[in-house]
This record gives sequence, C-alpha cells and structure tokens, in this order.
Amino acid sequence: MSRSRKRNPKTHLKSQDMWWDFVSLRPETTFHTLLLFSDIGRAHGYRRMNGSSVHAYKMVNSQGEVVYGKIHWKTEQPAPPMTFQEAKDLLGPQPDYFTQDLYDSIENKNFPSWILYFQVMTVEEINAYPRNPFDITRNWRVEDYPLIEVGRFTLDRNPVNFFAEVEQVGMNVANLVPGIEPSPDRMLHGRMFGYADAIIYRQGTNWPQIPINRPAPGVEINSYQRDGAACYGDNGGGAPNYYPNSFGGHVPSQAAEHVSFSVEGVVDRFDVPEGDDEFIEARMWLERDMGPEERRRTAEAIADRLKDAREEIRERVFKNNWEPIDQQFADQIRREVEVALRNAANNNNNSSLRKMKGKK
Amino acid sequence: MSRSRKRNPKTHLKSQDMWWDFVSLRPETTFHTLLLFSDIGRAHGYRRMNGSSVHAYKMVNSQGEVVYGKIHWKTEQPAPPMTFQEAKDLLGPQPDYFTQDLYDSIENKNFPSWILYFQVMTVEEINAYPRNPFDITRNWRVEDYPLIEVGRFTLDRNPVNFFAEVEQVGMNVANLVPGIEPSPDRMLHGRMFGYADAIIYRQGTNWPQIPINRPAPGVEINSYQRDGAACYGDNGGGAPNYYPNSFGGHVPSQAAEHVSFSVEGVVDRFDVPEGDDEFIEARMWLERDMGPEERRRTAEAIADRLKDAREEIRERVFKNNWEPIDQQFADQIRREVEVALRNAANNNNNSSLRKMKGKK
Amino acid sequence: MSRSRKRNPKTHLKSQDMWWDFVSLRPETTFHTLLLFSDIGRAHGYRRMNGSSVHAYKMVNSQGEVVYGKIHWKTEQPAPPMTFQEAKDLLGPQPDYFTQDLYDSIENKNFPSWILYFQVMTVEEINAYPRNPFDITRNWRVEDYPLIEVGRFTLDRNPVNFFAEVEQVGMNVANLVPGIEPSPDRMLHGRMFGYADAIIYRQGTNWPQIPINRPAPGVEINSYQRDGAACYGDNGGGAPNYYPNSFGGHVPSQAAEHVSFSVEGVVDRFDVPEGDDEFIEARMWLERDMGPEERRRTAEAIADRLKDAREEIRERVFKNNWEPIDQQFADQIRREVEVALRNAANNNNNSSLRKMKGKK
Amino acid sequence: MSRSRKRNPKTHLKSQDMWWDFVSLRPETTFHTLLLFSDIGRAHGYRRMNGSSVHAYKMVNSQGEVVYGKIHWKTEQPAPPMTFQEAKDLLGPQPDYFTQDLYDSIENKNFPSWILYFQVMTVEEINAYPRNPFDITRNWRVEDYPLIEVGRFTLDRNPVNFFAEVEQVGMNVANLVPGIEPSPDRMLHGRMFGYADAIIYRQGTNWPQIPINRPAPGVEINSYQRDGAACYGDNGGGAPNYYPNSFGGHVPSQAAEHVSFSVEGVVDRFDVPEGDDEFIEARMWLERDMGPEERRRTAEAIADRLKDAREEIRERVFKNNWEPIDQQFADQIRREVEVALRNAANNNNNSSLRKMKGKK
Repeated sequence: MSRSRKRNPKTHLKSQDMWWDFVSLRPETTFHTLLLFSDIGRAHGYRRMNGSSVHAYKMVNSQGEVVYGKIHWKTEQPAPPMTFQEAKDLLGPQPDYFTQDLYDSIENKNFPSWILYFQVMTVEEINAYPRNPFDITRNWRVEDYPLIEVGRFTLDRNPVNFFAEVEQVGMNVANLVPGIEPSPDRMLHGRMFGYADAIIYRQGTNWPQIPINRPAPGVEINSYQRDGAACYGDNGGGAPNYYPNSFGGHVPSQAAEHVSFSVEGVVDRFDVPEGDDEFIEARMWLERDMGPEERRRTAEAIADRLKDAREEIRERVFKNNWEPIDQQFADQIRREVEVALRNAANNNNNSSLRKMKGKK
Repeated sequence: MSRSRKRNPKTHLKSQDMWWDFVSLRPETTFHTLLLFSDIGRAHGYRRMNGSSVHAYKMVNSQGEVVYGKIHWKTEQPAPPMTFQEAKDLLGPQPDYFTQDLYDSIENKNFPSWILYFQVMTVEEINAYPRNPFDITRNWRVEDYPLIEVGRFTLDRNPVNFFAEVEQVGMNVANLVPGIEPSPDRMLHGRMFGYADAIIYRQGTNWPQIPINRPAPGVEINSYQRDGAACYGDNGGGAPNYYPNSFGGHVPSQAAEHVSFSVEGVVDRFDVPEGDDEFIEARMWLERDMGPEERRRTAEAIADRLKDAREEIRERVFKNNWEPIDQQFADQIRREVEVALRNAANNNNNSSLRKMKGKK
Repeated sequence: MSRSRKRNPKTHLKSQDMWWDFVSLRPETTFHTLLLFSDIGRAHGYRRMNGSSVHAYKMVNSQGEVVYGKIHWKTEQPAPPMTFQEAKDLLGPQPDYFTQDLYDSIENKNFPSWILYFQVMTVEEINAYPRNPFDITRNWRVEDYPLIEVGRFTLDRNPVNFFAEVEQVGMNVANLVPGIEPSPDRMLHGRMFGYADAIIYRQGTNWPQIPINRPAPGVEINSYQRDGAACYGDNGGGAPNYYPNSFGGHVPSQAAEHVSFSVEGVVDRFDVPEGDDEFIEARMWLERDMGPEERRRTAEAIADRLKDAREEIRERVFKNNWEPIDQQFADQIRREVEVALRNAANNNNNSSLRKMKGKK
Repeated sequence: MSRSRKRNPKTHLKSQDMWWDFVSLRPETTFHTLLLFSDIGRAHGYRRMNGSSVHAYKMVNSQGEVVYGKIHWKTEQPAPPMTFQEAKDLLGPQPDYFTQDLYDSIENKNFPSWILYFQVMTVEEINAYPRNPFDITRNWRVEDYPLIEVGRFTLDRNPVNFFAEVEQVGMNVANLVPGIEPSPDRMLHGRMFGYADAIIYRQGTNWPQIPINRPAPGVEINSYQRDGAACYGDNGGGAPNYYPNSFGGHVPSQAAEHVSFSVEGVVDRFDVPEGDDEFIEARMWLERDMGPEERRRTAEAIADRLKDAREEIRERVFKNNWEPIDQQFADQIRREVEVALRNAANNNNNSSLRKMKGKK
C-alpha cells in the first residue's frame, strides 16, 4: 500500500491517481484509509498519539499457557486532534512542529507518558473468531476483547545525539524476548525478514553491537555470527564460531517453556476467503466510533486528496470503498469533492503563479 | 558552509544559530549569503534560474593556447523572481511546485532553453587580478570579463523513469573532455575526489556503465578498472588489466595538446591572505546590481531567518557580515529583524497551538 | 558444518581440532564426512565430478500431479579418482590444476558433458519412508528410487571474461521455474533466503539485470522491485511500482497448476527424532558402495587429517562417528592414524625447518 | 605492476605471459623484479624479514628543520633464506607455515623483534641526488646514506581475535603524526587517497572508531566527520559539525612547527626523464650486494617462472631487463631457462595426470 503513495516514477510527483488506484483495487484497504483521514490521522504531535503493535503475537507464560495478544499504548497527554485548517497552516512555516514539540516538552521536564495495554484472545476465541484474526486489516473490537493495563512508559530524556541514538536504532520484529513468539500472521513473518534486512543494509551486520541497539548499556552481545564490517567488540575472542562446540563458546539462552500443539489444514495459495466481508471493520468504526462532526471532518479530508485523482478512479473509489461501507457517508464525501474541485478551479484562475506560467 | 545548515545534531531541528554562527565566523561567506537572500534565491522555478560552473577551468585550444574560464548559462524564460509572500504561500500546499512546473512545461512542448556563455581570463589577466582569481568566494565582474556566447541548450524530453535517468546521474567534476582541464582552484581539486567518491558510494564502481552516464547511448566504456559489483558489460573481455600491454588492451585516448609552463612560489599553509578585502564582492553587488526594491526584499528575507538566531549571534552577524559591506543596509536589516521579532511574539500569543501546548 | 572448517579465530590457522570437534558432537555429519574422504572427494578435476541438487523439490506436472524429486548429473568423462599421493603432489606446484584442466578441455573442443537424471518419490513413498526424507543427511538409495534419465548438458564455451560470466553468477535457489516448487526441506527454506541475501550483498539488488543472470541474452527482467544501486534498464519506465494497478504495469506470469493438499501435525521445536539411526546411510554406503581398496584409501585419507586433532577429540570421533558404523573400519582408521603420527614425528625430527626454528 | 600478476581475465589462471609482458614493457621494474627473486624473496617466515617504508617522508623537528627520510626495520632473528627447494616443498603440505611460525613463536614467549632505523637526506642532498630521489624504483644506497638506529619493536602478544585485531586494521598512509609529513613522492600522494578509500570500502566511514584503529585503547576519536553506518561513539554528541563554531566543538590539534619554502619548476606531464639510467640500481645491487651463490639461486628462481612465458616475451625480457644490467647474469638465466624447459617437457611426458587427460 505504501508504495502506491511514493512519487510517480515518471513525473517524480506525488500522485493521487496512484494512491486511489491501489485503494480501489484492494478494497481491504478501506478501513485503514478511513482511519488515516479521521481525527486519528491529525493527532496534535507525537506526544498525543496512541499506538499499537498492529500484529498479534503468541504470548506464553511460565506454565506454557498460550494466548494471542496485541499491544496498545494510550497517551496520557490531552489528545484533541488538529483541525484540518490547523494542519494545513503548519505545513509551510513549521514542517518540524512535531519534532520540536516533543523535544521541547522533554527538555522542559514535561515528560510525556503512555499507558501500556495488552489485548488478548484465548486459543478458543481465536478459533471462534468469524474472520481471520491474524489478518491485520481486521480490528479486534475493544468491547469484545478489552484492553488490560500492564504498565506505563515515560520519555524522560532527549537523545545526546540524534543520529547515534535515533537514526541508528535497529527495529527488528524478529528480536523477541522469551514469552513473546510469532503468531501465524503472515505479514508478520515477512516483516521478520524485511526489518532485519533493512537494518543490516543501513548499519551493517554488526548493528546489534551499536550501543543504542543493546538490551542495556554495556550488555555484551553474544552470537555465532562473526566478522563482517565494523565489528567493535572482540568478535567472540578465541571461541569457535560453530555450535555445539567443546571450546567454551557461548551457550544459547534457554527459550521459555515451549508449547507443542496440533494443527490441521489445507496447504494452498489463498486470496481473501470468498464471502468474507471486507468492509465490516470500517462500517463498525463509522457507526460506533465516529460522531457526526468527525465524519464531516473526515469526509472533508478525504475529499481534499481524492479531488486530485482522475474522474474514473474517483468513481471507482466511491463504488469499491465508500458506498460499500455507508451510502450516506459516500454521498457526503462526494459533495465535499465537488466543493473542493470548484474551489481549486477558482484558485487556479486567480493565481499569480498561473499568470507567470501562462507567459511562456 | 552547507554543514552549518544541516539539522542540529541534538535537537534534529534546523537551527538559525548554527547557520549564522558559521557565517559570522567566516566573513568570506558574506557575498554568497547576500546572493542567497536576494531575488536570485527566489527564482520562479527551475526553468527561470541562471547558473554557472562556480569553478574556473583551464581551457586549452588545439594550438596549445591557454585561458582560464568559467561557464555560465542564462535562462531564456522570463525570469522575475517570486515575492517573499508567494514563496511562503507555496511551501505548504505545493512543495513540489518547481518539479511540476518543469515537468509540465516540457510535457506541453513548451521547452525551456538557456544560452551558454564562457567568461575568460588570459594568463596575464589571471596574474594581474588583485585577489586570488581561483577563490570561489570572489566574483569575476562581467563588465571586466564579459560573457562570450557559445551555444544554447534546450530541455526537450522528460525522463522515461526518474530514478534511471535522474537519480542515477553521476556528476563527477573529474570527468573532463580534452581541452578542459583543472585550474589551480583548490576547492575544485577537493571536489574532483569528493564527487567521484559520492557517485561510487551510491552506484558502485561501475557507475560509468549505467546508460545515463555514458557519453551517448550505446557508447562503449573502456577502462583499466575491472571487476567490482554490478558490472554489466564484458568487463574488458580477455584483454589484460595492466597497461602498457601487448595483448590488445585498450589504448588511452590522446589528451589535447598539453601545455608546459613555469611556476615559482612558496609552499606553505595559507589562510586568506592578510589585508585581503573579504567584502568587496558583496559591496559591489549591493551597489551595482541591486536596486532599492531588491535591497528591501533582501533585507526582509534575511531578517525572517536571522530573527531566529540568538541575540549574541545576531549582533555578531551585523558586526562581521553586514556592517562591513554597507552600514545603511545593515540598519535596514536590523529594522526588519525588530519587526519580525515583534510579529513572531504576537503570533505566538494568539496561537491555538500554543494554547494546546500550555495545557500540559 | 562448514564453519568448523574455517580458520581458528585466534590463530588464523586451519584447525583439525575444530572440525573433528564439531563432527563428533553432531553424529549426523558422519555420512557426509565418510563421502568426503572416499574416492568421491578426490575426483580428477571438475570434468570428472558427479553432482546432485542435495535438496528434494516438489515437482508438479501440467495435470497438477505431485512427486518429490532430486536432480543428479553424472559425468560422461572417465572418472577414476586421484590417488591420495597424486592429490598431495599437485597441491604445491599446480594448485589451479582443476581450473586449467577444464579450461583447456573446452578450448580444445573436447567438450565435457553430463547426463541429467531425476530421482523421485511419490507422495505415498514419502509418507512410507522410514526416516525424514527431506533431511539432507539422508540418502535416497538409487536401488530403491532409481535414476530416470532426462537429458544431457555439455559445456561448449569458455567465458569471455571470468568475472563477468562466472563471479557475477547469482545462484539463488528461490528462483524456481513453474513446475518446480520448494519441498518441506527446512534447510532448503533457509537457503531460499540466504542465497538471495548473498548475491544481493555481492552484486546489489539489481543483480537479476546482469547479463549472465538473465534467463537468456537480452530477455527483459520484469519486477515490482524498483530503484536501488546500479539499475541498468529503464527501471520499469513510467509504470507504477504497486500491484495490482490500472496503469499498464507488468502482470505476473501465471504459476503452474497449483496443488492443494491437506496436512496435519504437531507444531513444536524438533531435534532429530528420538530413536532415529544417525548412521544407517554411512553404514550402507560402506557395505554396498565401497570395496576393500576404496575403504583402505578412505581410512588413510581420514587418518591424514584426524591425526592432527588432539587425542581426546580423536577418541570421541572413534566413539561417536566411526565405531557406530563399523568396528572393523574404525580399527582400520585407528591403525592408519598411528602410522601417520609416527611418520609425522620422524619427519619433524629430520626437518631443516625445525632446525632453523630451534635456533631462536 | 601487481595487476599484471592477477589471474588472466579469460582463463582465471595465473599467467607468466602477463607478468613478464608488463615487466619487459616497463624496464624500471627490473630492480624490484631482481630483488623479488633474490634471497630476499625467500625469507624464512615473517619473523626473519626486513622491511622498509618504501616511500620517503618529510621529517620536521621542533625547530622546523627539514630532512627527508625513509624508515627501515631489520630483524633480530637469524635470517638465512630458504633454499628454492625448501620453499617448493612447503607449498603443498604447509601453506600456512609463515603464520604458524609467527604465532607459535609469540605463544612460546620467543618474541620476535626488529631494530628500527631512519635513513635521511638533507635538502641539499635531495637537490644533489643525480636521479629523482622520490622515485620509489630508486635505491638510496646505505653506504651513501647510512642507517641511523632509532629504536626497536617487539611483537609480544598474539591477537585475541584475528578478525578484530588484524583484518580490521586500517592502514592509511594519510594518517600522519606531527613531525612526519608527505614528501613530493607522487606514488605516496596517490596512496594517501587509495589506502583511505580501501579501508572505508571494507569497514565503513567510521573505521577510526574500531578499537584496533585507535591510537591507544579507549582514546577518544574526534572529527568533524559525522554519521555514516556503524557509528559506535556518541557521534560528537550535541556539538556542531561545522568548524569554526562557538558551541564547544572539538578544536584541531596544532600541527608541528610548519615550514615554508620556495619552489620553482615546470608544470608538465612527465614520463621518466630522458637519458635516465633505469638499470643503475639493479646493476649496483648485483655487483655489490649479491655473491655468486645468491646470483645462481636468483637465476634459477627467475628461470622457474620465466620458462612459462611464451618465447617472444622471454626474449623481450632478456633484451629489456636482464642484458641491460649484466650480460653474464642474463646468460646465466638463459641457461637455467633452457634446463627448466627441458625438465618440464620430461615431466610432462611421464605424468600420470597427462595420461588421464589424454584419454578423453
């Protein structure tokens, strides 16, 4: 999905045609697109954003009991979103507003914090869920699977050097602690390779040795991966680089109590299961989570972008994305698009830039 | 100089303190800074910009006669600059305006063109020039060394693919054709290594084989550099990779008639020669090339950035950069800074963003 | 396994201690180690070697019928192995003998050729196989699963340039043609990532564009992977880089008739199943495929290396590797080791090198 | 020169044709080639080798006085060379003999040591030297410019890990301490860029931070080069990355008292000056430094390689390299070549390998 929002390979310009083309050809993007243009997408800075793990993970306790869980964090800062106009007004003069707001807040000892929650399904609930619970385009409704508070985290220090402590961070979803294991989410499986590849490409194979990527300051990194560019430690010293060995090489930590379970199924190449409702999450969100004012703001924000797609694609978006979730909401967007197109035409006629361009 | 305009290593924000700190500590930056904030720095798109080679090159004709020359190109499109307000208004809604303007112009067969000029000094003029003529902070005044028209170039095709034909271009000032040779400009010498290093880092050692980097489509690239990642040709086939050889390896092209000349001098480590006037170019430009209206626009633009530097640095800039070129112009900037600071204070008080930030 | 044969990380010397330490701690290496020291490991040059795919692949015909198959090729050149002495004699004066032999043979139009065979198991045979048939330390006996001749290949051209056409070859087991799919072999799964990573590391992400890596000269490479260093083609031109799209981007080839099938099993972390005989392949090979003369040569070759491991490791090798397959063969190796150790001691005493070393 | 000793780009075999082709086309290689095949080229291990800086450096004392100097080190271990036969005998069975000998010696506390000497020319001697004293194919005769003992170094510790402490070493001739500066040697100038490029390519731009490359354990590395892959320190913390600055960034160390001097000359592209004797160093070495026995061994060693070059190249080598230094020595080599060719022909006829190759 994100690749359809890259620049057009020929014009090097951002292209609403590309984005909406993809969205309308893959209707399972509807829920994500709705959220993006809702108030959630206009959060007032990093400090006021909520977040989640997106993927479910397998969580195993010390007795070997399994649940599947997602991780959420909720800001403790007041979180009213920006209005559409406020967001537009910031773009030119303060493109770094979010970074500045977060930095200043921490520097002024006004430390931002978040409450951490787990949201879990038992194996029975997983099996009973009417759709694929590991499909990240699905939404585990909090009224059905409530958030369980487990902690809080606070940002109480700015980095000493942004490159050293932020740019060099190696986010790798394959780095899991005992008790948290991969779920059957296949997007997660892909990311377990892709995220590692990305950090290796950027920082080299010895990226886990970089201070900010260590579990804690000074903690030794042990691995049977040796050599490679920019190795800062003793590279395993004189210990052999094969395992098992009888020359004192590092012994892997014991994994948590692991769990054996039975599966059965069909090996095949699946698209979305036939008959699945691709729109149920978006529809429920619109009905239960958005009031009339947020709907209006969301329709206005969608229209502001959709107006720049060509007509046949706009019509396909109405037909494939918005009408299937709610005819009334679709009509609301359509009216906003018409207004936006009219305004754009007027602005264009009055623009001094256009006059200049017309000259030659 | 460009490094002082990078983001602050601690805050990751752009910092007027850093920029003006450097400018005021190296007064030879004054002329460049003046130009940047003048109308030249608010050109109305890529099509309406002039350009130059910055460096002088040694130019040798077929009789072995030498002059030193700079290359200039002047747009044939009408070139009134943007106003300061127009530029600010574009920032948020149309950050890609320049790219779009150039692309559309070419796509609509409204091909932009430039006239190419050489500006030359004979060896006698080089020796007589009162300052170091190869110092790129100096300006060869066109009334003294007039522009000689030598050609025109026209952009009549957009790239088929932006990455393939623009991102991959390997600009390398060490790639010179017979008749154009390096001058004694030491910044040029540094760039002859640095530009090559940059393209090797980005595209690998075989970058000259990439189609857009060849002299013309399909032209064979011959070199005694072999192997390396991503070699697309036959890598020299069976010919040896040492030279001279008697096994049919490529013979280097004959250089142009080369010129032998005598030099004498002192080998030492030099800073700017004592007694040199670091401000003469900026002063002449202000007097001869900028009318009162452009001075006003320039002072306003400088003030809009300088106001964000801390007071001690602002004062050092007045003392080290603006007052040495023209007291009246310095005073004009000072008044604009005062206005800008007052406006900024007012805006801040009324800002709804500030209210939100004040809450917690 | 191959990592235990790398140089010792402290001494930078090859170490028999390391190799045999690993072999004796992982007894499933016994069969491979036996083959390596047998006549197979002393083939008389590349032209006289047989080979195989090692891994099994899933083979699917146009009716969607599945078998699992390995690929073998048998040299058509007479294939008597070198004697141990001949091999040793070549090491110093002709370390490139194999390369020279292959090059000269092709240059003299004495083209080497191999017959290609498939060896297959039906799904029923896979299920009935008494051990894990996808474990690459197992051997599908040719008398049970006979070789089926399917073709011949001939090497009839030397490369024009070794680097361009040999060093740059991107071997990637994840590049499969329709009809050949991965089997459940987990070592294969690992290699599907590892081989691709290796060629990307060496040649960059655009390695499939390098001429030698194309399916045939001039064949266009289509992919939704774009950009990256050293892109030689048009990088997809103006087509979008997301899929599906409605702007004329490349449409993926249809895979072969794919096959759906049911599985059931237990998800767990397995070592070798308890009770499995780790030595059965080595024992059968010794009994059925090696005559007394080859046994003798093999014991001599093993001893020549094993003698350089320390005694406790040597004893562990006898106990964990050779005695479990055949007590008589183990004794034969033991006698050869004793002879080799005696000879080494004598040589050392007489060595002029030792005398020099003794001096200081 | 070293590129002519790489493998042939077509056959991937080492090629005496390539090597001797280059040597005979660039006669200034004669002296180096003579040394290589002399007893010096058959040193009995790393411990028994002498060495030198090859290049001259400008040496400046605290009073600003300048001399030009080369650095030499002489082994304190007895240094009789291997015989030609001993060297050949080691090749196959003990290819790592040198590494083992050095490692064992240190491990057994038999620490190897070298005496360090400077060999200097005053500026007057430089100007009076009859050839270009900075041409590395020239030899500063020790009887004219004697070795001055300045110290001793001892290798008293093996690396903890070979990769970390040997492979990662960044040899960079541009890393100079105060008092040692580049001389006018243009090969040195090239290496000042090339060596740095090589280590950056292998270890990344932050290679000076790797422990083995620091001046001493734990010494902080200060630089205005920031960011780049694998930065292990704090990347300069919050200090700016431009210089000069007023925010507490690192201040460069003062260079030693620097020296100003006058030069005059002709700027041109030079080959070896006409009339220069390319053979004088080789001839003097043969006459003064080699006795009849070493001459014989050297002729035998040269012949062993030269015999494998084709006849026209062999003849060119006699004419362009050996006859110009000494007709008698040239004849001696010629006789050895004839013997070697005869022996090779006989061996080939008797070879069992040849019989095998003849079969098909």
